[in-house]
Amino acid sequence: MSAESSTAFRVAGVRLATAAAGIRYSGREDLVLMELAPGTQTAAVFTQNAFCAAPVTLARQHLNVTSPRYLLINSGNANAGTGARGLADARACCALVADQAGCAANQVLPFSTGVIGEYLPVARIGTALPPLFQGLRADAWEAAARAIMTTDTQPKLVRRQFELNGHRATLVGIAKGAGMICPNMATMLAFVATDLAIAEGPLRSSLNTAVASTFNAISIDGDTSTNDACLLAATGALGNPLLEDGDPKGLAIWQQVLDDLCLELATAIVRDGEGATKLVRVAVREASTCDEARLVAETIAHSPLVKTALFAGDPNWGRILAAVGRAGVVGLDIDRVTIWLDDVRIVAGGGRDPDYREEHGARVMAQDSFKIEVHLGRGSAELRMLTCDLSYDYVRINAEYRS
Amino acid sequence: MSAESSTAFRVAGVRLATAAAGIRYSGREDLVLMELAPGTQTAAVFTQNAFCAAPVTLARQHLNVTSPRYLLINSGNANAGTGARGLADARACCALVADQAGCAANQVLPFSTGVIGEYLPVARIGTALPPLFQGLRADAWEAAARAIMTTDTQPKLVRRQFELNGHRATLVGIAKGAGMICPNMATMLAFVATDLAIAEGPLRSSLNTAVASTFNAISIDGDTSTNDACLLAATGALGNPLLEDGDPKGLAIWQQVLDDLCLELATAIVRDGEGATKLVRVAVREASTCDEARLVAETIAHSPLVKTALFAGDPNWGRILAAVGRAGVVGLDIDRVTIWLDDVRIVAGGGRDPDYREEHGARVMAQDSFKIEVHLGRGSAELRMLTCDLSYDYVRINAEYRS
Repeated sequence: MSAESSTAFRVAGVRLATAAAGIRYSGREDLVLMELAPGTQTAAVFTQNAFCAAPVTLARQHLNVTSPRYLLINSGNANAGTGARGLADARACCALVADQAGCAANQVLPFSTGVIGEYLPVARIGTALPPLFQGLRADAWEAAARAIMTTDTQPKLVRRQFELNGHRATLVGIAKGAGMICPNMATMLAFVATDLAIAEGPLRSSLNTAVASTFNAISIDGDTSTNDACLLAATGALGNPLLEDGDPKGLAIWQQVLDDLCLELATAIVRDGEGATKLVRVAVREASTCDEARLVAETIAHSPLVKTALFAGDPNWGRILAAVGRAGVVGLDIDRVTIWLDDVRIVAGGGRDPDYREEHGARVMAQDSFKIEVHLGRGSAELRMLTCDLSYDYVRINAEYRS
Repeated sequence: MSAESSTAFRVAGVRLATAAAGIRYSGREDLVLMELAPGTQTAAVFTQNAFCAAPVTLARQHLNVTSPRYLLINSGNANAGTGARGLADARACCALVADQAGCAANQVLPFSTGVIGEYLPVARIGTALPPLFQGLRADAWEAAARAIMTTDTQPKLVRRQFELNGHRATLVGIAKGAGMICPNMATMLAFVATDLAIAEGPLRSSLNTAVASTFNAISIDGDTSTNDACLLAATGALGNPLLEDGDPKGLAIWQQVLDDLCLELATAIVRDGEGATKLVRVAVREASTCDEARLVAETIAHSPLVKTALFAGDPNWGRILAAVGRAGVVGLDIDRVTIWLDDVRIVAGGGRDPDYREEHGARVMAQDSFKIEVHLGRGSAELRMLTCDLSYDYVRINAEYRS
């Protein structure tokens, strides 16, 4: 038994350390170094924003060439909108890490989150590196979850332990969010690691699958960050036979655990959305295609009128109906559409359900968490999203943050 | 000289009357009857929302068959989300008007704005009709502009007088808005009339052109109503030779005046947006196509993060940059993008303009009205939109309205 807490989360093959480098505030942990054991397989998903941040550009380049050994993650500064100098700064940080680690610079991936448009304090980061390397330990996941926070009020840290092919495997993930994206504070970041050995192809495809229904199916304000990134690492330290395409049963177990963990992290992000007081699941069913279901779900989840009604706890079904109607579904037959709040049917036959009573809707919406379900009556495709309400505090946080 | 005020707006061939029918509140004018002289040519544009309201469905049907003689407009109730009964109620109202007027029921067009999902009080509307017919007069435009208001704080009434082919013509318009659409209170409505004689084809095409750059280029909250409608009437009472396709010069003068009047009404709607404290013009230039320019302009105009920064008067250019980046322009070269606040360039070369100073941006954003201009560096298409900020009052109005 080491001095490390026995209840702390650990993933064999991963060590972490945190530091207060004074990137935006002094005395606050804002820098994380994560070390991955040699041979670790990784997969990553990044923001689709054309104005992606310098660390995103560089991380993509490095991942195209080799597997990473180190991740350097800072909060307080997004290094976005910083042009050529931003890219040079990110490169410099990777080189500093590589120097101390004795690895190649492209084996280091940079991640940044925080204010847009200010240059990264490279010298301060460099000063913080030696103690970071000395402080690397297996049980620092929670400290790392705290150090990557920006407007988050809670660290987001999740673990799963599960049996796979006779081995007891571990999966740990941390994330930060707050605004779904808040380009000022910028970013959803998530780092997930397992001690399993998983081949490159299946690892990448499992991450894409998990992200589609979790991190890419949440909306706080409909804005997409310049810095969003999700990285998945499989260290192989467990010593299991490499999980490959030839083992569909094993892969199915893995996918289920990964989906589940990502959903828990994504849910934690929405729950902790800026100013959020309600967690709302939006489910669109009976769509012709998944794209059509997504269109309707996003229109509901992004509508300021729906979101202010959610904040008020007001079963203002006309706003949901109007959002469905304006989503752009070609040839929508409104007589076939039904809309539900949990088990209460509010819309049928092109208008208010004749049996609907306001107090039934009010009862559902008084809860902290509930579901809006829409049946389009067109097919069998479906999609789920997580969203939250739009409150005074959302306006306060985003109007006052820089003042 | 009649007893009517000589300064009141009038359009020869149009008479109006208003009444307090007690549709939602008692003692408030909430019903308008507008009479159009025989031979009046009309054109109309309606909401694209699939859940369009009963009056929209019926007005479209009637316009397909014949030209209207009467418009019956109520506030306080949108008659939307009311299914088959809503349609029957709208038909009943048209029949009541037709009975008194001695015209066909399909010569009456219904328009409604107000709360969604409640049935129209047809009997109360019927009771109000005889005094409405008796009260028809030419100078009641301002009273009508007030009677169609919902959460608007100001009536919206605009006039243009202009020379066309030797005749002094008049164009008058009224509108209501408040939420770009606020499906609870529902709707932008606009009614515009001229005393010119204009042929059907050019009238319709001039309305479509005007609406595209005015009423369809404004955003308060990105929501689209179930009830939006804009009707244009040309009574021909001026006695000018019919304005037709063969007179491009005359049509150009007409289009200019119509565009200008619609823009003034649209601007008034945004200025009076729910909780709005700033009027912001968004101009996207150097796009490959108009659709691409619209995509970028709408993404900026709908972004809650941009809108809260506008409310704060915070030149938080990172949020504008991030909105441009996530708009979905395929192959956007961010190094060619420039972004301006009025005459202050804030973004160039993929990031903050090196010459930009925060105080310059703050000076622009301290104004009540200013422009965000984006140059994409891809072509010559452009598009302008009008939007407003997202304030505490927007949340208050929309969260508390029904409570």
